[in-house]
Amino acid sequence: MADIPTAAISRLVTYLRILEQLEAQDISRTSSTDLAERAGVTAFQVRKDLAYFGRFGTRGMGYTVAILKRELVRVLGLNQTWNVVIIGTGRLGQAIANYPGASDYQFQYVALFDVNPAVIGQQIRGLTVQHMNDLRSFVEVNRVDMGFLAVPPDHAQDAAQSLVDAGVRGILNFAPVVIQPRTLERAGQHELSDEWRNVIVENVDFLAGMKRLAFYILNPHLKDAPNSEDQE
Amino acid sequence: MADIPTAAISRLVTYLRILEQLEAQDISRTSSTDLAERAGVTAFQVRKDLAYFGRFGTRGMGYTVAILKRELVRVLGLNQTWNVVIIGTGRLGQAIANYPGASDYQFQYVALFDVNPAVIGQQIRGLTVQHMNDLRSFVEVNRVDMGFLAVPPDHAQDAAQSLVDAGVRGILNFAPVVIQPRTLERAGQHELSDEWRNVIVENVDFLAGMKRLAFYILNPHLKDAPNSEDQE
Repeated sequence: MADIPTAAISRLVTYLRILEQLEAQDISRTSSTDLAERAGVTAFQVRKDLAYFGRFGTRGMGYTVAILKRELVRVLGLNQTWNVVIIGTGRLGQAIANYPGASDYQFQYVALFDVNPAVIGQQIRGLTVQHMNDLRSFVEVNRVDMGFLAVPPDHAQDAAQSLVDAGVRGILNFAPVVIQPRTLERAGQHELSDEWRNVIVENVDFLAGMKRLAFYILNPHLKDAPNSEDQE
Repeated sequence: MADIPTAAISRLVTYLRILEQLEAQDISRTSSTDLAERAGVTAFQVRKDLAYFGRFGTRGMGYTVAILKRELVRVLGLNQTWNVVIIGTGRLGQAIANYPGASDYQFQYVALFDVNPAVIGQQIRGLTVQHMNDLRSFVEVNRVDMGFLAVPPDHAQDAAQSLVDAGVRGILNFAPVVIQPRTLERAGQHELSDEWRNVIVENVDFLAGMKRLAFYILNPHLKDAPNSEDQE
């Protein structure tokens, strides 16, 4: 699995969402052509993306929705529990905490943190908002797999460092900032400082979506070849 | 510009964000190596992505931050005004309306719509929440370039159709649903119905980010080759 493009992982997530919608409509069979049409890619792309992870269908017979869904859930690691803390409980943090479907697939919010004295101690979705100073001691005694960053842009880098210092290895960053891992210079080379090794940062960026949309409204013909990088 | 991968557009947005951060730190020069390190891609990738749109640096001399930033702003269409309506004014819609930086680059919220009688007529960021039934007449007399979908999942498809029926050509979908364009069967072929031609849908999906993060926490070695599809 050494050279799976990141775009393929994003597409797997899309295929899974489509399979859920098919299941909700009581549709039990699908095909690479059908998935491709719904996802806006080619059938070749669908087959190639799935082939990274195994053989899920019978040649010429398509896929059983329930089986393919179960397999994608397993590939993506969604059949296990993920404990999540949310950093920042303003409108954005609250929208995340209340986002429909966030509690599907065993993502569990286990704690909320903020620095604003006015909100520390308040209850949101049954969780008490704690002070950021208590993050480290919380992580010491509770399993935390992911931290969701929902803080203002100028606090995002520091909050990310606090998560990583506390030992959290996965960050979903909602702030419009590119998080910079801490690097050290060793023998003239930049390398990641120890605590950032194996840290994964994924971004959910409202503004990036707005900018991509602006580009494609101006250049709609470029949207005709979805994911063309994989179709040579 | 016929075969620019969609992933390249996403990376341009990242480079622009990095240039903004460099400018905020009063750093006036950068290089493909520097941009690559900050974006987590290779320097070759940076040069290749930029080369789709022109020559922005001097060979061996790197880039002037202000100039490269101005050029990316132009390429992405962010030097013009974009009028935006938000559909759905729950926690998510409000988080979007108040997201820091959303009013940079001339994205302007011009109206908010909802179907909940309890919120119609309320003020959010100086805008009065209007009923969805009034969307069409609003779009007839006001320029609307984009609609942001922040409605519950089961209403997303209908709300998207309402936007497209009203003539809005760009949709940024925040709901965890894959929006399906309406298709017609003509001479045995599926094709887009007229109103969906030239409609662009981009997704900002919280849950997709969570799922990608789960995958990469389980498979961190796959994260070592960022955007490997473009590096053959």
